[in-house]
Amino acid sequence: MSQTPGTLLAALRAEPPLVQCITNYVAMNIAANVLLAAGASPAMVSDAEEAGEFARIAGALTVNIGTLSAPFVEGMHAAIDGAKQAGRPWVFDPVACQATTLRRRVSAELVARRPTIIRGNASEILSLAGESSQGQGVDGRDDVAVSEEAARRLARESGAVVAVTGPEDYVTDGTRSARIWGGSPWMPLNTALGCALTGLCGAYAAVAKDGFDAAVGALAHYAVAGTRAHEGAVGPGSFAPRFLDALHAIAPEELDKEHRLRGHEGAPA
Amino acid sequence: MSQTPGTLLAALRAEPPLVQCITNYVAMNIAANVLLAAGASPAMVSDAEEAGEFARIAGALTVNIGTLSAPFVEGMHAAIDGAKQAGRPWVFDPVACQATTLRRRVSAELVARRPTIIRGNASEILSLAGESSQGQGVDGRDDVAVSEEAARRLARESGAVVAVTGPEDYVTDGTRSARIWGGSPWMPLNTALGCALTGLCGAYAAVAKDGFDAAVGALAHYAVAGTRAHEGAVGPGSFAPRFLDALHAIAPEELDKEHRLRGHEGAPA
Amino acid sequence: MSQTPGTLLAALRAEPPLVQCITNYVAMNIAANVLLAAGASPAMVSDAEEAGEFARIAGALTVNIGTLSAPFVEGMHAAIDGAKQAGRPWVFDPVACQATTLRRRVSAELVARRPTIIRGNASEILSLAGESSQGQGVDGRDDVAVSEEAARRLARESGAVVAVTGPEDYVTDGTRSARIWGGSPWMPLNTALGCALTGLCGAYAAVAKDGFDAAVGALAHYAVAGTRAHEGAVGPGSFAPRFLDALHAIAPEELDKEHRLRGHEGAPA
Repeated sequence: MSQTPGTLLAALRAEPPLVQCITNYVAMNIAANVLLAAGASPAMVSDAEEAGEFARIAGALTVNIGTLSAPFVEGMHAAIDGAKQAGRPWVFDPVACQATTLRRRVSAELVARRPTIIRGNASEILSLAGESSQGQGVDGRDDVAVSEEAARRLARESGAVVAVTGPEDYVTDGTRSARIWGGSPWMPLNTALGCALTGLCGAYAAVAKDGFDAAVGALAHYAVAGTRAHEGAVGPGSFAPRFLDALHAIAPEELDKEHRLRGHEGAPA
Repeated sequence: MSQTPGTLLAALRAEPPLVQCITNYVAMNIAANVLLAAGASPAMVSDAEEAGEFARIAGALTVNIGTLSAPFVEGMHAAIDGAKQAGRPWVFDPVACQATTLRRRVSAELVARRPTIIRGNASEILSLAGESSQGQGVDGRDDVAVSEEAARRLARESGAVVAVTGPEDYVTDGTRSARIWGGSPWMPLNTALGCALTGLCGAYAAVAKDGFDAAVGALAHYAVAGTRAHEGAVGPGSFAPRFLDALHAIAPEELDKEHRLRGHEGAPA
Repeated sequence: MSQTPGTLLAALRAEPPLVQCITNYVAMNIAANVLLAAGASPAMVSDAEEAGEFARIAGALTVNIGTLSAPFVEGMHAAIDGAKQAGRPWVFDPVACQATTLRRRVSAELVARRPTIIRGNASEILSLAGESSQGQGVDGRDDVAVSEEAARRLARESGAVVAVTGPEDYVTDGTRSARIWGGSPWMPLNTALGCALTGLCGAYAAVAKDGFDAAVGALAHYAVAGTRAHEGAVGPGSFAPRFLDALHAIAPEELDKEHRLRGHEGAPA
């Protein structure tokens, strides 16, 4: 039986999971603030000398390739080793994986290490699934809808739950699927909110029995908080503090009441 | 014929340029948010393994030495190589270039690679031009006015448009010059807003025919947004979200109406 | 005779000290903004090639191990060398020093280099003093009160002033001690505010005759600003800009009037 977003949020708040985030320099601060506001305990530990050791005490690991370099890649693999040894979930965020040779290579390596969840925009998911995309930089230029079939195929091939985020989000494990919507047009104008959402997927995965429920829970929390924060915001700047406030203020029962989800159990069309 | 700030802003909004920013760790998040709010698409890609490849698909490159290290320098040169091969403009931000031996050496190397625009505070521009300055850390301690002659000489010697920013900004290509004012006293109390402005110069350079117009456009956009954001702000903290809101809210025609510019075509005094 | 927080704040505002911060990637931006709002001049210079040279021109150095790696450690030692040669105070922030082998080793090395002030949460101070703690990640899970004896012993053994921060702060040099309270429950939900406080300790140390007064001054400034910022904030997001505004707005005489301090001269119980 699936765990609702509110059920998972209650569990997360009752015992805040330690979430190890290997994320990019742009995202580190906002990702930590998103996790703290939501109720989790973030730790940005990425150096190979300690990343594996730390992953064994963390509740989940998230890996993001936004600002890639050889030391980061080394740390990612060490951390994934640790998470796997400890039986912990890990989440992969393939930022701009279509943009350069290095990103394509590292992304393929990381997918092969069987993440619990892959979260990206449509351009990134299309690229990971081996299809051509319109994306160049870190912004997705493809519609989520266009990527759904690719997402299902990627999920089946990689064994990961795939979450494609955009104005409407799509989550699939290759069999089940769900669509979540809400949020705010100010969200893509706040840098690294997608990267921070990857961190939140890690927090939910740390307390969930199932990666699919975890991804749906994190995306629902984000969408409801974004919808709330949109009220009163007049631009991307005034949106940001409201969003952190909303992530924190949402109670589990409100989350289950307010999120807008259309789920499909069984084989998708 | 020169392109007005509003003309350039309209072009930037019509087709958001991908701006590759090699900037310091302090600035990465706010620089990305400034570019997004203004209407551009930032990407923080700095590792030598991919920086040159990425520069060939970006519309402009910006290089900032705020948190310097050997890997950064290697990435900067790789990216400049890529930008030059692709015929793209690049902007140099010589943060605290007077402070250490390393900074003086790297700054001289980068100036020799002929940036399209150099943007710095008065202390940095004086130092780049070989004059003594009062600056120690990252704050400028010299008046913009004091640096104008040095800025013109630097522009003539380097081939770059030189933008000196402070309470009143000065832009020169060695022949033409312009002064822009506005902004807010809260701006120097928000870290890395100068670094973020360098990113915006890159965005304007990506859509402009001429580096001089690009620098004037970016500085005018900043000054008008800063002036607007000052209203209602009671300190540096409340200024920041208002500034991002204002960068986003300004329409091209408002920018041309509100910016305060005194330009001098022909030989400066 | 001791210098009050307000006396030190007035000195800091009269001649803003240049504070070199070697801090983690999560903290760099907010630490710089905290120092600017308070009235100091931050510079994030950490690479070994220039960190020592820079430390000789800075008024104080702060060293934080939040995102540790070999290049950071090399830069820390170079900077400490420079600070010691120039006779400048330096502050150590042992982030999550109990979490990994690397952190335990590097923390022990840094304590042996005799920092002027050590600032950490109770879990970190207990760990540095050789006692077991409940902390796993970067959040302290131990009460400040539990760590007081360990703090005094650490102070006597290391020669440093030890500042343990939490809902109520405790400062000791092994002989004198003081407790400071105030702040806001939103503070631990804003990432890296502790790291930024370490930076502020550096700023106060740069203008104080005595490390004990410096630590008390910085903590009092933080507590009063946090208390003020709490009013009107509805969550961690709305707290943050108010906090920066409050750090800036507080006048020296208000600081001495509003801070809540219980000091003990002489041997503690």
